[in-house]
Amino acid sequence: MKILITGGAGFIGQRVAKRLLERGELDGKPIDEIVLLDVVRATFDDRRVRAETGDISDLKVLNQHIDTDTEAIFHLAAIVSGQAEADFDLGMKINLDASRALLEVCRAKGHAPRVVFTSSVAVYGGDLPAIVQDDTALNPQSSYGTQKAIAELLLCDYTRRGFVDGRVLRLPTISVRPGKPNAAASSFVSGIIREPLNGERSTCPVDGDTRVWLLSPQRATDALIAGCEIGRAALGNRPIINLPGLSVSVNEMVEALREVAGDEAVARIDWQRDERIEKIVVSWPGAWNTERARAAGLAGDASFAEIIRAYIAARS
Amino acid sequence: MKILITGGAGFIGQRVAKRLLERGELDGKPIDEIVLLDVVRATFDDRRVRAETGDISDLKVLNQHIDTDTEAIFHLAAIVSGQAEADFDLGMKINLDASRALLEVCRAKGHAPRVVFTSSVAVYGGDLPAIVQDDTALNPQSSYGTQKAIAELLLCDYTRRGFVDGRVLRLPTISVRPGKPNAAASSFVSGIIREPLNGERSTCPVDGDTRVWLLSPQRATDALIAGCEIGRAALGNRPIINLPGLSVSVNEMVEALREVAGDEAVARIDWQRDERIEKIVVSWPGAWNTERARAAGLAGDASFAEIIRAYIAARS
Repeated sequence: MKILITGGAGFIGQRVAKRLLERGELDGKPIDEIVLLDVVRATFDDRRVRAETGDISDLKVLNQHIDTDTEAIFHLAAIVSGQAEADFDLGMKINLDASRALLEVCRAKGHAPRVVFTSSVAVYGGDLPAIVQDDTALNPQSSYGTQKAIAELLLCDYTRRGFVDGRVLRLPTISVRPGKPNAAASSFVSGIIREPLNGERSTCPVDGDTRVWLLSPQRATDALIAGCEIGRAALGNRPIINLPGLSVSVNEMVEALREVAGDEAVARIDWQRDERIEKIVVSWPGAWNTERARAAGLAGDASFAEIIRAYIAARS
Repeated sequence: MKILITGGAGFIGQRVAKRLLERGELDGKPIDEIVLLDVVRATFDDRRVRAETGDISDLKVLNQHIDTDTEAIFHLAAIVSGQAEADFDLGMKINLDASRALLEVCRAKGHAPRVVFTSSVAVYGGDLPAIVQDDTALNPQSSYGTQKAIAELLLCDYTRRGFVDGRVLRLPTISVRPGKPNAAASSFVSGIIREPLNGERSTCPVDGDTRVWLLSPQRATDALIAGCEIGRAALGNRPIINLPGLSVSVNEMVEALREVAGDEAVARIDWQRDERIEKIVVSWPGAWNTERARAAGLAGDASFAEIIRAYIAARS
């Protein structure tokens, strides 16, 4: 089978590709080719991988890389929350128009491929219950969350009509991300752990009581692949699954860092509130009901200290 | 003030215009001009009305009819549910792309006009509680409902960013509509009353136990105008109001017809189930919580018999 990963040069895209290659199969079928499509070329040392560059909002690019052999698509490419808030048109173009274009190309090809679409805590917002339920209304308080919520609705309708076999996996905030800070409002959620572990200073822009809903990169990768393999019937009339997370306050994250790496690591965090970031982050849920995900066999992490230890192990 | 009504030649558009002209003012400001924009030219005998024709998915048309004097826009133009299900591309073009284009033109003009956007019971669907709450998730089971839900999200984000001062008014099914049957899945909800009252036969395509959520044209018109006058602050971070309705089964509607017009009227209804229509209609809520609307002074109807009597009175 042939698989397309948009945002394939990105952090999660790379991990999904690596994991798929290790497995050698998806949904019981051997993997012949994985196309990694991104604005920058992915580097991957495996003859089954083809790395391509292109703008996914360009129908020509999508038409070139999706054909009737493309049985599964992981649509991960996105403009992150902070950037979509700063550049409204760019967010609309990539998060909304490109997602719709991808669905339209699939519809035109007519083979109804599996499409795994990653969504986010950011689709929720406003006055939320302590634990968000599967039937809690979306009220996004950012343009990123709005665009993700719209793409979800499109995917669900294209699925209902049989144009694609789609499933939305709503991700908690991923922590600890490797690499550099990015333009996501949630960038600090990785930064305040990663930078201190690397001997660097990092700024926490929100109050320590702020509650976040986290998933490790390892668990997220496994969940995306497992989510792709869930059968159509199990999804019913609502092909959306809220992935399990860990509900921790920023203070609890810091205490886990202290437990794993000591006081000197914690001392590298500077506390300086940034209203623009805080406003977005506090609008997200601190926890949601995970029954549906667990029934589908999708698991979260046991503790934040374990997440930090897994990050350290993967780094070395 | 200048007001634009899209779908201005339509049944609700005409009533809103007529009511606004009777009042002579909106939100305390005298009405100088009402532009009725539609694919067919509205006929209106009032020097304050300008009837225009044009395709609202065409940016040029919107740019021509929205200027910085346009202080309020009632965006009522839509492809109805049955037609949007039958012609996916047309529904996407008018219900989604044209709504977005209208918001984009407002954004470009920069004067943040009031925009009243009508939405529908069809944004809900799937496994619903007996009474839908304000925080019940949208899970539309039709392309029309999906397109309305997306346009809602866009309006909310454009409002949050200050591009427009928008408000979504979710309408129950309107009954009794005058005129002819249309391509809405809910067309029969008026037809089984209107046609028998006119001495004609009408077919009911759903089971008599099917519960529908209704509002009269009179109340709907008043609610749209009152909704436009609600101040920004009262809407908070969620500029959406579910308008009050009347929850009745189709059998109860028929009994009300019998009460008002007798057995001979009821005998003109043919019962013949149509799975395509029933599937859409039963996915809609039979009732929703109306607290928020009532707090804003928006009222529903007292009984379905009263709605029928009002229809008869307006007809003569």
